[in-house]
Amino acid sequence: MISFAINKAFFLHALNATKRAISTKNAIPILSTIKIEVATSGITLTGSNGQISIEHFISVENDNAGLLITSPGAILLEAAFFINIVSSLPDVTLDFKEMANYQVQITSGKSEITLKGKDVEQYPRLQEVDTNNPLSMETKTLKQVITETSFAASTQESRPILTGVHIMLKDNQVFKAVATDSHRMSQRQLNLDKKSADFDVVIPSRSLREFSAVFTDDIENVEIFFSSSQILFRSENISFYTRLLEGAYPDTDRLLTPNFETEVVFKTANLRQAMERAFLVSNATQNGTVKLEITGNAVSAHVNSPEVGKVNEELDVEELSGSDLTISFNPTYLIEALKALKSETVRVRFLSPVRPFTLTPGDDSENFIQLITPVRTN
Amino acid sequence: MISFAINKAFFLHALNATKRAISTKNAIPILSTIKIEVATSGITLTGSNGQISIEHFISVENDNAGLLITSPGAILLEAAFFINIVSSLPDVTLDFKEMANYQVQITSGKSEITLKGKDVEQYPRLQEVDTNNPLSMETKTLKQVITETSFAASTQESRPILTGVHIMLKDNQVFKAVATDSHRMSQRQLNLDKKSADFDVVIPSRSLREFSAVFTDDIENVEIFFSSSQILFRSENISFYTRLLEGAYPDTDRLLTPNFETEVVFKTANLRQAMERAFLVSNATQNGTVKLEITGNAVSAHVNSPEVGKVNEELDVEELSGSDLTISFNPTYLIEALKALKSETVRVRFLSPVRPFTLTPGDDSENFIQLITPVRTN
Repeated sequence: MISFAINKAFFLHALNATKRAISTKNAIPILSTIKIEVATSGITLTGSNGQISIEHFISVENDNAGLLITSPGAILLEAAFFINIVSSLPDVTLDFKEMANYQVQITSGKSEITLKGKDVEQYPRLQEVDTNNPLSMETKTLKQVITETSFAASTQESRPILTGVHIMLKDNQVFKAVATDSHRMSQRQLNLDKKSADFDVVIPSRSLREFSAVFTDDIENVEIFFSSSQILFRSENISFYTRLLEGAYPDTDRLLTPNFETEVVFKTANLRQAMERAFLVSNATQNGTVKLEITGNAVSAHVNSPEVGKVNEELDVEELSGSDLTISFNPTYLIEALKALKSETVRVRFLSPVRPFTLTPGDDSENFIQLITPVRTN
Repeated sequence: MISFAINKAFFLHALNATKRAISTKNAIPILSTIKIEVATSGITLTGSNGQISIEHFISVENDNAGLLITSPGAILLEAAFFINIVSSLPDVTLDFKEMANYQVQITSGKSEITLKGKDVEQYPRLQEVDTNNPLSMETKTLKQVITETSFAASTQESRPILTGVHIMLKDNQVFKAVATDSHRMSQRQLNLDKKSADFDVVIPSRSLREFSAVFTDDIENVEIFFSSSQILFRSENISFYTRLLEGAYPDTDRLLTPNFETEVVFKTANLRQAMERAFLVSNATQNGTVKLEITGNAVSAHVNSPEVGKVNEELDVEELSGSDLTISFNPTYLIEALKALKSETVRVRFLSPVRPFTLTPGDDSENFIQLITPVRTN
């Protein structure tokens, strides 16, 4: 029967990170619990919603944890409730003691709280992933690639494969991530320092956003392992599993052509703010669009929503070349694309009013390209 | 036809304060607009949801406003939409110009936005309040009294009068505010510096909370005017009107008796944290209560929710006198009562397990008393 003492703040931090995998409204009630496994070497916390699973290890050797284990064992506790209880405790440490009938007694200062737990045998087994030959990456690089691409994935379940981000390693070194919802696309590519085995997977974009939340900035490196149906991101203490999406991802390379007729470089912030104003008025009507006019050496943006009002914006440009052009599109796509760009300027290349246009960093600092499909207007 | 220029940030601040009176889901569509009246002396903004009305005056003499009026007039604009537009403008100033057919053109930097407005004649007339013989108070004092009482008002419409705070001036100088939802009561009394005419009104607690949000801490004094159905809170630039509740407020004085059998003084924060832990477990079952046991010179709190768990707390006490007692109550009421107390310690006086108990500041610093009704348990 479990018995241990631990630093309350440290325990709470680990519980909260694990809880991110736990959905409170899960159809499988047991998945609203957190699994606490106590061994002589430390405590493993496990949470899962069936799609994502997180294992968090707290070692007895971690001085900040103040962990003293007197008896090992395992139990399930209602996650949200247990975490609220731990968070409310009065003292800096807490004593955790398993009693008969899956009851757990938590003592801290002059408080003593008894909770009902569940038999750990009820918890589903997590599928194992072979932990050989990992791909190793800097956490901050992987998180940046996720920020730059995952927003472009679809949120609609009509084509499930498009709700994922297509991630590949080619030629043992070229890492590439692509997301598209069929209206816009975002692709980021980079060369890894170390060679690794090629792979080609589609990861749910929701899982990737959770990964970014769980792998905080103090975790420098992440190791990535694959199986046919799962991926595992692992740091020293955290193992983050997610299911992969099954099916063929569309060939997005054919969408990228080197041809263009008109090229404009904007200050990223200027263009974004102008589009946010345009969006306010365009959004007040259904399927509102903004019309961009490039004539001579001037660029302007226009919205005309007869019910609501009009917007006319003259846009400052840094560079401008090529033919005149008038093109209409949904300003939301451009706003989200510009939010994903870290560079101060953005290079926009147009081919024709009916062909997708591309956005790249104005200083070509990164191998990052986005594509937005225009709206046909009469 | 209106024409003026104004500092964008200043205008936005005034618009946002006025907007607090405007409900976006009002049954009367015209009340989702903001009225903009431009005179040679300045601009008056008006918003109303039918219960609360706010008039905000921006003077041409206010240097921070940067207000330059070239032509007066009045118009109605969709409040939320117009405020979003103003907030998105690129430059530090904006030009506002009325065009034909209730159209308004806003220019700022290289942005030009045209919006549809409405005829000001459609706006309902606000009822007038006689502005003689005001009661004058420090804003921060009035806001504190509101914080100390309004939370105890009922949120249920079954007895509408209890959704208000009963506010009185007696003997020309004794200001008293009381709220009760029939389970608990909070009463604050203070002597005003200046004499004024007696009054007795019931103000919706929701209106009082809005008043506290609109009258920011930089407004030192507030003047209060009454009519039979309305109250007006006024500062130099803001007039805040609210309807009064009609009907007789229950006689709450009879609830307060000077008798008690047991008296305990706690550290306010200690008692509150213990109750918050008790609440976590008691709240997991319907009508969860906490049991307080006073025996000899020890006080302890207990929750037993068979489905969920148990809490046992020993409570530190500062002072303790009188008979032993066991009493059960809803911990939420005690938590909210303790939140309203600014004093470091709290004096709790019990008469019997079935009679309400009272809370007062431990140092008797203020004429502030709260009352909580126990729950009968078997």
